This record gives sequence, C-alpha cells and structure tokens, in this order.
Amino acid sequence: MTAKQNEIESIHSTTELEAETFGAKAQKIRQLVNIGLPIPPGFFISKNVAANVGITAKKNISQIIGNLSGLYSLRASPTDRNWGSIDAILNLGMSDTYIQRLEVKVGKCGSLEIYRRFIHNFSTSVYGLEPEIFEKICYDQMRLMNVEDENLLDEKALYSIVSLSKQKFREELGFEFPQSLQDQVDLAFSAMSMAWYRPSAKILRAARGAPDDAGLGMILQEMVLGIGKNVSGSGQINTVDPESGQCELTGCFLPNSQGNDALMGFRIPHMLSEQQMKTEKQTQPSLECLDSNSFNTIRDVIDKTSITLGDFFDFEFTISNNVLYFLDAVIAERSARASVKLAVDLVTSNALTEEQALLKVEPYNLLEFLHPQISANSVREVFGVGLPASPGAISGQIVFSSQSAHLINLKGGAAILVRVETTPEDISGIHDSVGVLTSRGGMTSHAAVIARGLGLPCVVGVSTLSVNISEKTILSDDGRTFEEGDFITLDGTVGEVLEGSVEMTQPEISGSFLKLMEWADRHRSLGVRANADTPQEAQLAKDFGADGIGLCRTEHMFFEQKRLLVMREMILAEGELDRRNALAKLLPMQRNDFIKFFQIMKGQPVTIRLLDPPLHEFLPHSEAEMVLIAKSMNVTLKCILDRSKDLEEFNPMLGKRGVRLGITMPEIYEMQARAIFEAAECVREEGGYQVVPEIMIPLVSTDKEVELIKKSISSISEEIWPDIACRINYKLGIVVETPRAALKAQNLSELSDFLSFGTNDLTQMTYGLSRDDAGGFMRDYLEKGVFPNDPFHSLDLEGVGELILIAVKRSREVKKQIELGLCGEHGGDPSSIKFCLDASFDYVSCSPFRIPIARLAAAQASIIKKIENVSKIV
Amino acid sequence: MTAKQNEIESIHSTTELEAETFGAKAQKIRQLVNIGLPIPPGFFISKNVAANVGITAKKNISQIIGNLSGLYSLRASPTDRNWGSIDAILNLGMSDTYIQRLEVKVGKCGSLEIYRRFIHNFSTSVYGLEPEIFEKICYDQMRLMNVEDENLLDEKALYSIVSLSKQKFREELGFEFPQSLQDQVDLAFSAMSMAWYRPSAKILRAARGAPDDAGLGMILQEMVLGIGKNVSGSGQINTVDPESGQCELTGCFLPNSQGNDALMGFRIPHMLSEQQMKTEKQTQPSLECLDSNSFNTIRDVIDKTSITLGDFFDFEFTISNNVLYFLDAVIAERSARASVKLAVDLVTSNALTEEQALLKVEPYNLLEFLHPQISANSVREVFGVGLPASPGAISGQIVFSSQSAHLINLKGGAAILVRVETTPEDISGIHDSVGVLTSRGGMTSHAAVIARGLGLPCVVGVSTLSVNISEKTILSDDGRTFEEGDFITLDGTVGEVLEGSVEMTQPEISGSFLKLMEWADRHRSLGVRANADTPQEAQLAKDFGADGIGLCRTEHMFFEQKRLLVMREMILAEGELDRRNALAKLLPMQRNDFIKFFQIMKGQPVTIRLLDPPLHEFLPHSEAEMVLIAKSMNVTLKCILDRSKDLEEFNPMLGKRGVRLGITMPEIYEMQARAIFEAAECVREEGGYQVVPEIMIPLVSTDKEVELIKKSISSISEEIWPDIACRINYKLGIVVETPRAALKAQNLSELSDFLSFGTNDLTQMTYGLSRDDAGGFMRDYLEKGVFPNDPFHSLDLEGVGELILIAVKRSREVKKQIELGLCGEHGGDPSSIKFCLDASFDYVSCSPFRIPIARLAAAQASIIKKIENVSKIV
Repeated sequence: MTAKQNEIESIHSTTELEAETFGAKAQKIRQLVNIGLPIPPGFFISKNVAANVGITAKKNISQIIGNLSGLYSLRASPTDRNWGSIDAILNLGMSDTYIQRLEVKVGKCGSLEIYRRFIHNFSTSVYGLEPEIFEKICYDQMRLMNVEDENLLDEKALYSIVSLSKQKFREELGFEFPQSLQDQVDLAFSAMSMAWYRPSAKILRAARGAPDDAGLGMILQEMVLGIGKNVSGSGQINTVDPESGQCELTGCFLPNSQGNDALMGFRIPHMLSEQQMKTEKQTQPSLECLDSNSFNTIRDVIDKTSITLGDFFDFEFTISNNVLYFLDAVIAERSARASVKLAVDLVTSNALTEEQALLKVEPYNLLEFLHPQISANSVREVFGVGLPASPGAISGQIVFSSQSAHLINLKGGAAILVRVETTPEDISGIHDSVGVLTSRGGMTSHAAVIARGLGLPCVVGVSTLSVNISEKTILSDDGRTFEEGDFITLDGTVGEVLEGSVEMTQPEISGSFLKLMEWADRHRSLGVRANADTPQEAQLAKDFGADGIGLCRTEHMFFEQKRLLVMREMILAEGELDRRNALAKLLPMQRNDFIKFFQIMKGQPVTIRLLDPPLHEFLPHSEAEMVLIAKSMNVTLKCILDRSKDLEEFNPMLGKRGVRLGITMPEIYEMQARAIFEAAECVREEGGYQVVPEIMIPLVSTDKEVELIKKSISSISEEIWPDIACRINYKLGIVVETPRAALKAQNLSELSDFLSFGTNDLTQMTYGLSRDDAGGFMRDYLEKGVFPNDPFHSLDLEGVGELILIAVKRSREVKKQIELGLCGEHGGDPSSIKFCLDASFDYVSCSPFRIPIARLAAAQASIIKKIENVSKIV
Repeated sequence: MTAKQNEIESIHSTTELEAETFGAKAQKIRQLVNIGLPIPPGFFISKNVAANVGITAKKNISQIIGNLSGLYSLRASPTDRNWGSIDAILNLGMSDTYIQRLEVKVGKCGSLEIYRRFIHNFSTSVYGLEPEIFEKICYDQMRLMNVEDENLLDEKALYSIVSLSKQKFREELGFEFPQSLQDQVDLAFSAMSMAWYRPSAKILRAARGAPDDAGLGMILQEMVLGIGKNVSGSGQINTVDPESGQCELTGCFLPNSQGNDALMGFRIPHMLSEQQMKTEKQTQPSLECLDSNSFNTIRDVIDKTSITLGDFFDFEFTISNNVLYFLDAVIAERSARASVKLAVDLVTSNALTEEQALLKVEPYNLLEFLHPQISANSVREVFGVGLPASPGAISGQIVFSSQSAHLINLKGGAAILVRVETTPEDISGIHDSVGVLTSRGGMTSHAAVIARGLGLPCVVGVSTLSVNISEKTILSDDGRTFEEGDFITLDGTVGEVLEGSVEMTQPEISGSFLKLMEWADRHRSLGVRANADTPQEAQLAKDFGADGIGLCRTEHMFFEQKRLLVMREMILAEGELDRRNALAKLLPMQRNDFIKFFQIMKGQPVTIRLLDPPLHEFLPHSEAEMVLIAKSMNVTLKCILDRSKDLEEFNPMLGKRGVRLGITMPEIYEMQARAIFEAAECVREEGGYQVVPEIMIPLVSTDKEVELIKKSISSISEEIWPDIACRINYKLGIVVETPRAALKAQNLSELSDFLSFGTNDLTQMTYGLSRDDAGGFMRDYLEKGVFPNDPFHSLDLEGVGELILIAVKRSREVKKQIELGLCGEHGGDPSSIKFCLDASFDYVSCSPFRIPIARLAAAQASIIKKIENVSKIV
C-alpha cells in the first residue's frame, strides 16, 4: 500500500477496512457496501491525515483528494464508537452560486433551507460562532411569519435568513462566508481534527478508555439531500425489541429532513411500517405507505445484514426523491436479557458460530438471570419506591455502617446497607451486604454502579424515606420507623422496599441462558469453582454450575449462636487442655457441615481453608455478652476482659492469624483436619462419593510452616486410617496471600499439592493497603488517577499480577502439574479471569452468583486466546 | 591428593591444613608445628573418616593408620570451635602388659595412676558406664587411706583401684577390659564419632550455628604423660590480660597431671612466673622456679607466635620429665575493649595488616566505647543493684509495657522498660526504650541479650526490687515506691539503679578506637548515615562519624508539647483552610529544626522523610486531653471525639499514612517542602553551607503518587526561587517499603533521584506480619524453627532480600547512577550491611549509636568482598 492509499480510500471498494486506521464507522459502511446496500459515494480518510492536520498541515485535504464537486458531508469515524465523536458537518459546497444549481433539483425553498442550515452548521462548527446567533435570526423570521415550525417558512423568509446569516457572519468575523467547496472542505476538515485533539476532548475520551494517541478517521461523502421533491427525508431503523430481544422492524421517518432530525423531536416523525403505526396509534402515514419501494428494500436488507454481519443493527437512512440510501449501521441496543437471546438466535440462524456468540454477551449481563424474585403470592408491604438500580430481590437486616454489615456477615446473617448515598468509603460495607438501599442518587449513582457490578439487588433514590445515620433509623413518609437489625426486603427489579422478610421464588434458569452456558462450558478450559461457606451456598454454587468449591472459609461456620459460645470457650481457655475440651465440642459440628458439603458437591473438589481470622474477631464486644460468657465458663468477668485485651492487636490483618494460629495452637487445625477426614469417611461409608478434600493453609510465608502443619495433618490421617489402603486421598495446599509466599513458591510448591492465590490479602500486602481502611483515601486516589481502578475490584496486573506470575513460574518449574487457583474477589472479574487463563491457572473461585459470569468470561478468554494464537501463527 | 591423604595427615608435615577437612584444632596445631613449637607426633584424621565410621565402618581406623605403639590420646577437632566438641580420650594403649613397660619410665605409682585414669575415661566415654562407679572405687580407697587428694594414694591403693575398676567393668558389661591398643583406638574412634552424630549433639550444634552436615576431624597423638619423674605435669598459658588487653604472661601448672587437670580445682596449681606468684600472693614455687628451661622456652615462643599467627593465644602444655610440649593454642579471650586495643597493637607490631585487624574485631564490641557514663561528681541515689548486663548509663521514665514505651518514644521522651523478666513479646517495647531493667534473670537472660544487641544500657536480676506490673509500681527493699513516668537512671556498666535523672559524662572517643575507625573509613566503600530525628541526635551522629543523615522522621518533631497542640489543630481542622492555618504555625518550627540539621551536618546530605504516620497517632487518648484541645480549638468535645473516631483505622499500618496523606492533604507536604527549602536558603545566606536536602516520600506504591508529589514540591521550589539560577539543588526520592514499590522500581526510579529501602515496613508487608503484633507468636516461631531469626533483627535475605535485589536491578537498569540506601533497623546489622554492599547500595542508615558498628561492618564487608573476588580470580 502506498502512503496515499493508506490515507484515502474510496467508499465503494471491496477490501475490508481496519477500524484502527479508518475508524469503526468507515469499517461498518464498507461492510454495508460489500453486502450491496445503497450507500452514497465518497472517501474514507484515515486517522493519519487528521493527525497531521492541525500540527503541520503541509497539504490541504481537498488537494489530496482532488476533483470534488457537488455537496458533501464530512463525518467523524473514531476507532471505537464508545470514545465519543465530533458532530458531522453537512452540505459542504453550498454557496451563492451552487444554490442556483440546487434549485433545479430541490426547488427554491429546498435550496434556501439547505443553505440556511449550512451557514449555521459551518459557522458554529468551523469558526466557533454561537449557535444562538443563527437561531435568533431564524426565530425572528418564524415570529414574523407567525409559524412554529421552521419547515413552514416560505421562500422569502428563508431568503432573509440566509442573507442575514451571511451578514452576521461578516460582522462577527470581518470577512465573507467562504464560497469555494475546496475551502469549505479544508476548513471543515481542520476544524474537526482540531476539535478531536483538544485537551478537553482527550480527557473525556481517556475517561471512556481511549488510549492517549486515539486517532480520528473521517468520511467525506456526497450528500443525499433528504430535502426536496417527492418522498425525501431521513430516518432511523430498529430491527429488534431492546427489551425482549424479539426481531421486529420499527423505526421512524421525517420528510424533508437531514442528519438526525427525525430523532430531535421538533416535528413528530412518521412510523416505518403500517403495523407499527397502528401499535403506536399514530395517524400520519407510515413510510410503508409513503414509499413502499424504499420500505420493501429496507425489509429485505435487514435479514441479509444480520446473517452476513452476525448481529442486529439499527440503521440511519435518507430518501432523496424516492431513492433510498443507507448512511450508517450501529449494533442494535439491547437489554442484558435480550443480548443473551439474540446471541443464541444468531447461532440458530447460522449467522454466528458458538464462539462468536459467546463473545457477543457481556458477562455481567447474566446477572439478570440469576436473582431470586419475590413470590407472586407474597403480601408486599411496600414502604418506599425508588429506582430499580440492580435487579433481583433480597431480604435482610438493616445496617447503617460497614462495621455493622461486617459483623452481621461474620455471623452468617444477611445485611442490607442503608445510606443516604454511598461513597467509596462504603465499599467494604457493600461487599459485606446482600443488598443496598439509598434515599438519594440515580441509576448511575455510586451505589447503583457498585451493586450492579457485584450482582446485589439495589434500590436507590427512595426520596420518601428519611435515613438518619447517626440515630440509625429510617422514617417512611407514612410514619413507619425502622431500626438497625430490622428485616426489610428490596425488590431491585422494580425498585420497591418492603417491610419484613418475604418469600422468594428462585430464578428459573432455562432457555437461551442455559444454551449459552452449555456452550461456555464447552469452550472454556479454566475451571470455575465457588467460594461457599455454608451448605446453602454450596447448593447455590452447584445449581449455578460450579466445578467445585474453591474456598470454604471454615470460620464462617462458627458464628452460629450455639457454636459461637463453644468457639469463645475455646479462645478464652486457660491452657491447651481446656482448649482441647472446647474443640472436642466443635468437632461434630464441623464434621456435619463438611458431610453436607461433600454430599452436595457429589465428588467434585471441595477446598477447605483452615481457620484464618484472628481469634478476637470471635469475641463479644459488649460487656453484657462478656458477662454471659464469664458465667457460662465459670470465670470472673475480669478474666474475660483481660484475655480479650491480650488478644487485641494493632494491625489484626498482619497479626496472629492464619497458619500462625495453626503453629501456636496446633490442636485447632488438628480438630479441623479430623472433622474433614471423618466427614469424608462418613460420606464414603454411606455409599456416597469418594471425595477428595483439598485442605488449604492460610497466610503462609515460610516453608517450615507448611512442613509443620503437613506433618500434623498427616499424623491425623494415619490415626484415622491406620491401614494405608483405606486412607482417602486428600490434597494439601496453601493460600498464597503474602508476597513472601509468592516469592518462595518454588519451595512451597515442593510441599504442596496446590496453590490458591488469595488476591484480596495479596493485594493488601503488596500495596501495604488495608481494604477496610482504603475508603479514607480511595475516592481521592481514583479521582486523581493514582489508581486507574480500585485494585480490590480489578486485579492490579502490574504489581500483584507480576507477583502471581513469578509464583506461577517458580511453582511450575518444580511441579509442572501442581494445581493453581485464584480465590479472591477477583475470581469473578472477567479481566482477571483472562489473566488467570493466560497465567496457566487451573481454576478461579468466586461467589456463587458470579459463577455463570465466570463461566462465560472463562469461555471468552479461551476463545480470545485461540484467536490471538492463530493471529500469532499467521 | 589421594583418598588416603585426604583422610590421614601426619602432624609433623608442613603444608597448611583446611579447618573444613581436619578441624580448627588440627589446623592450629599444624601452624604451631610450622613455627617450630614442640608438639608430640601423631596423626590428623579428616572428618570424612569419622563420617563413615558409625554408618558403614568398612575398615578400622587403626588399620588405616597402621604401626601404632605406645600411648595415644584421641582428641576431637571440629571445623569450628564454637560448635562444641567431644571430650578427649587419653592414655589409649594402657593394658596389663603395657603398665609394666611404663613402670620403667614413670614408676609404679605413676603407671598405676595412668591405668586408673584410663579405665575410668575409656569405660565412660566408650561404653557409657556411669562415672560414679569409678569415682566410688577411688573414694573408697581414699577414705581407707584417710587422704583427701588422689595424688596421695599409695601404690597399694592404686593397685586396688585398678583391679576393682577392671572387675567392675567385667561385672557391668560381661567381658574383660580391652587390652589391645588397636582395639582401644578403634573403639574410641567409633565412640567419639557416634557421640558427634547423636541427634541431641546435632541440635545443640545447630543452635550454635553449625550446618547440618558439620563434620568432626580427630587427632590421634602420642601421649606426653605429665605424670612421672622430675618435673612433669600439665598447664595453661595466658598471654594477655582479657580486661585491659595488655600483654602479660600468666598461667598455671599442675605437677603430675594430664589434660585440663590444672583448671579443675582439685589441687591448687602453681603459677607460671615468679612475678605472677608474687602478685597472687602464692607460696608454691612457680614454674619459672621449678623448670626454668621450660619457662624460658614458653616466654620465647609467645612473641614469635603472636607475630607469625597475627593474634594472641592461650596455650595448653604438658611437661614430661622436664621436656615441654605444646598441645593446643586457642585465641586469647578478651573483653570488647581489649579486642580493639589488641587488634590495633597487632598492626603496630606488624603482626597484622589494617585489613586483617579490622576483621579481628566483632563490630558489636564497639558499643562499649560509645555509651555515656554517670559523672564522677554526681550524687548516686542507688536503690537497687543487679547484674551489669549491657554497658552505659541512661536516664529515663519508667514504663511497664511496650505500649507505654511506644507512647513516650512517640512524644520524644526516653522510656526505661521495667519488667520482672522480658520475653519476645517485649521486643517492640525494648526497641522503643532507652534502657531495660528486670528484677529477675542473669547475664544471658532475654533482656540482657537483646539489650546488648541494641546497645541499650541494661541492668538485670535486681532481686531486691519488687516489680508489680498490673499495679505499675516498683517497690525497693528500703521502702521507696516508683510509678510509671517516674525518672530513674540505669548504670549498665556497674549494674546499679539510681533514683531520678543524673548528670552524664559523654564517652571519650580516643586511642585504639579512633585508630580502628580511621582504618574502617579507609577500607569501606559503603556510606554510613544516621537515622536522626532531632538536632541532638544529628549531633551525636556527626560525633560518631556518620556520612550524613539517612532518615530524619519529621513527625518526631511534632511531639514536643507546644507543637503537638498545633499539630492536633491541623489534624482536627474542619477543612483545608483551617488546616492551612495550623500548618502555617508549624512552618517556622519545622524550618528551625531543619536549619539546625543543616548547620550540624555541614554540607553532608540530610535525608528528610515527609510526614508518614497515620494522623490519629498524634491525637490524645484520654478524655481530659481531648477536653483541653476542644477548648483550645473552640469546638465541642463531641466534635473532637467524632473526628478522632473518624480517623480510627482497623489496620493503621496499612491505612491512610505516608504519601496517602500527601495526596489527600497536599498542603501538609507543601508546608514541609517549604520549611526544608527555606531552611536551606537560610543556612546558605548565613554563609553556612550549600546543602543538598534529600526529600523522601514514604509508603509509595505507584508512580503516579511520586509524579503528583514531585510536581507539588517542584512548584514550591519555583515559588521560593523564581530565578532558576538561585535555586538550590535538592534530591527527591522515595522509601521503598511496599512490595509493589520494589516491583515497580523501574518506573519509580525514572521519577526519583534516590531510593531508600525501608526494610522495617518492607519486612512487615512481605511477611504480612506486624512488628507490633508479632510478639504473640514470635517465641513459638523461633523455638519451632519456623523463622531462623527474627526477620526484624536480621534481614530476611530469601524473601525481603530478593525483593530488594529485584528493585535494585530494575532501578539500576533505568538509572545506573541512582543513589540507593537502606534506612530500616537492619542498617545497623552487620550481616545486613554485607548484603547491602553486595547489592551495590550507596549507603546504609542506622541509629547514631550504631554508626561505629556500621562503619566497621562496612569495612569488613568490603575487605571480605575483596578476598572473595581474589579467590574467584584465583
């Protein structure tokens, strides 16, 4: 390709275009040309041309193209449509002389209308004159004529507008309105380029994910007038119902209009089809009636386009004197639910392969399919209505702070975080809650965005509720008061807040969703396990198609009231003997939990993390509770207070927790290992399943820690199964969550059957940043761009990611087949999932509601990897 | 060398021996042979032989050597004398037949005495019989004869003892006492090998730093009897006074004795010289008098040995029938102070090069030179006397807990930690204190060991004090009571505890110490800077020879009462404006501090760390203080309480501190930068020095943080010096203390003039381990060998060290000349200093008292590196 070819392309060629060079719109128009849609002729101008204009404009664009005559539009074509664009300039070429040639085609009024539009458009876009100047001239004439529609202005009025506009132009700028097509094109081109490279536009783009050097392709295209004789006008075609995903042809058409006039609402547009006209109860004739030829052409090309281009589109079109032209096609908008249906439909109609369809669906869209809904026969005691910010229904206890959410979550309860508005300081509270309710804020408020991301039901902007954070109350406008701990229900699908707990219907998973999931499983190589702490969660994970349990936090089993008391006895015990007595009481409880886990997972792997949190997390905070415990343990309150004080830590995150508990009080892990083994044996004896429990040691930083725990667990297994032939296979691994464990992965892998990366803690320690305390500055950090993303949401690939890659490399070097997993919050984040696949992980583990998302994301990652590999080979 | 040569060496050869193969004692004996000392002939047996005996003894040692006759000793020669040894077996070859041959040489009594000793020694060492068996036989005869000294037993008694001993041997073991020299040698050799490889011996050795595969060389040497005719006996020679380091010949000699009899105290030995006899007021004739020939030989060889072997030694010797033999030479014991004098003396006498002398001195020994002493004319109100566990005197306030020590330290006060005994839980408290006092424990108690390591004055075992931790009182036996906060003074050099603060004399640094330091500076390439937070500390650092200040923690300047109030106003301020007002008051205070720093350091670098700790560290904890602040700020107490609560964090270590404060409240760092620049300008204007302040940003984890702070500081400098020509040079760098900063060293170095590794925090984050909370399990971890050392004392080379090496490599790659330093506690640890030199650091920074230690350690590291490089080339 010569330099020139790299700069300018005729619209009507057949080679495929790179969006990277000519922009997404140019690429799409070329595709439309290739499937035979009627497209006005013209030129695609590459981003390289625009990049040079405004810096060193050696040569004008009109010279480069040469041979221009007639009227043209100049339209922007950025590489990615999401980055934002620059408004088109239409009718380039209009002048005092050209207007006379145009009269022949579109009449006096038509040509004056076009000139009027052009002067307005060109002066504001190119010279930055205020639109109000020209609007005023127009309104003055409308007032003079006493009409409310520009379209009703007569020739004389239009002529005045044109003259006054030109005069105003001269007054403002001191020279005449440019009259040569070449000059107009060159000026328009420069102006659009400059607009694109303005610093403010750059910042805006960057916020939408555009790279620093994002370029702008442009399209210089002959005008199809839309203003003139017979049926002339512009419109919009929609091909699917965005809610349901059903294919149906709808749209609108506005006679005597250009560009996006039809959507601007100045005049009521005509419907596309007779059917649509009736449905919408319109009286204006539909396009089908006005110009059945054009309508039929439209109907015919829709199917052809969807099959050839593998998706459904919305189209822009213009009819000029009964001749139809297509100007653009944009992927049809669709709801999350519709996106799944459409993807599956496109495979059914052979428009897409399974792989292509899988790539079509944004993984987070699956959340809509996964949430419970309030049963139809439930009594709905609604006390507040707001915006349905995130779908699904949930019942839980009111909390007003992250701390309370954390406590309820620790105890296995369900918290609903209630705030006036949420801020980044509430992140950890949202994580610890099952739903979010705010009295202020809209669909894009912080609470709404975060809750949708996490798949939590959320209702925002319930302005009739007064939320009093310091007094911890909610007052509804009908006088009901709710306090912390009271049960309420959120219906995030409709935006209602209900009193009390309400019966739920579990989501029915079927149809397109199941089909897509089936394909996802077929195309993914990365395992998807669930973080599940209770048998209920395990069942949910199983239902959502998890490949196993990747993280069972045993401590969550201890927060149930009866167990908590025994747990506290254990913690407050004077010495090893007392501790062992308490542990003996906990053993059957743990065993029963594990039995249920094994039964639910039916032979799939269950990864159990040994006790991790610092012991003081289990202790009571109120004196009343302490008195109770002192009584039950038959010791003085002072003794409890002292012990509790002893256990306090400056930095609990970095204190005596994880394996450090296991080393200093070996009897705790011994009890847990025994419970796991006995449960496995029990399930086997019941004729259940041969289970392979995976036991995981938290917070490891040295190999000696693993050696000691391994030895102790191994001796428990020998005690339970003296006969080696009967011994069940179990795996022993570690959580890699300290940077040191990552660095020492080689030695640790020699001792381990698997490594599971606990990316929450690993992120905390790599940054020296506590997730619980990050709220105090996270907002500043994100606003100032110190962090591109919250590293607790999206894995920090540069820092934490590098540590993981170092660990993976060292681990695979000594033990090629070692099982590698990820069990932090990031396990449900699609971009992190791609990272895990690339890093040769065996599985990710995430919360049950994220399982379908992770399955789809894992499939997408595999497919993309395959494509990347192919393109590498090519 | 053939395999055999590798196993057995004749004592009287001339080639140098490897301690690694034949042991340290063998190596030393060969050196003595080479300088012509009289040494009994025999064989060195390599550790490889002993390693094979006891496992697969294919061939007996007597066969390997062949041709043995007469009497032999078998002595252990481990690679390193500090690992512990195995007792020698003497008189191998004694038997019913050999005794007759011996009679001729040593008489009947002498030969019987030797046989008696042999049976006892051999039976217990080889067969593990109880020593009591043989002692009883001997005592019985002594009682029978009514003597109190074995030496007075007559022939008949000795004969009985020998007969009864052999009979007892037969009764215990069922066979006769072995009579062949070959058998005896083989059995002794096996027994000593086995004893060396016993698990318990291994554990003991490991605790002393021996590697797992530490081997045992042995020495089979002809006996010099020490029992017999004319002057015969054994003794010990000392060549220097261990306290003063003065050369003087002393020692003892015990007629008719073997081995270390002279030192056992059964009989009073004779002095070596007449002079010594007089000094010690002894009446027994000295060796000089008994055998002047031998004494003269001894006197002559001493000087020769010290010059040739480059050190002073203690010797073991035996005289047999007026013939002198040397059996061993061990480096003479010496006090810390003496070690410095001797090293310098050896250079003066050309026995050592400067480099060799530098390697002779244990860096920690320098601590003795550095501490203040109580002024001679002070009134000493002594209220307790204990053991002088760590030298120096210090005054400070009594604290009973680490928390209190921390608080006092934060406020710039001096805490003296008082405990009954200290445990690893008290480590952080000891770090935060200036002295330690315990009522229990000895010279090797935990408190004593740790305090000596840190150079803190320490008095232990003051049993007359009753320390009541829960009531926070000390009661002395004369009825005085002391409470937390009371001032006391410790004199760690004599072991006294004094009431109140006492006037001190600063240590005089002169003589050998200064000479050694001068050499150290000449031979080191690594810079040694000081961690100094106040002008006083800076002066101390300067006096101790620091090359600059490597870490000035500005926050420590804010704890002075008046400043603290302003600081609190700043922290509790409602918004930026109020904060700026408070900061404006702090500015002149900071500026004055910096002026003093620059004046003291006279143009040497001063590295200033911007505010680091979380703000709540500065807030009051008692309500009384809060009321005071509320009053002074004219706000309600609730307001102070609320704000204070807002600032609380779950994990302050990982919270809003360091650069996070700088980003979220830029005005704080702006004030600090302004204070630094104005101070630098002020010193320059005063005709002082052109200073190069090095400004250091703490807790960095991303490059954007550095970018923002750099920009803000740069604009302050532009504001102060609008004229670029006048602008002072300042350096801007970061503390690398998060693992992420280490990983991102490449990007961070591009933005920085220097990196300073904050190894305290880096260790905390790499391990996920808070130093303040590690006490809860550190003891267990060290006892169970999970950590070989406390990683906060000795740098963890495998984990933290690797992160540092990664960072250094990446940093040097982008900026070869970037300045690299270390500013954690490890900066004063000799092994960490070696690491820093090897890692191409420019400097380490440590507390002022550690400066001389670090200077010496840095010189040693350079010298060792030079030696290693030479040996690599060879």
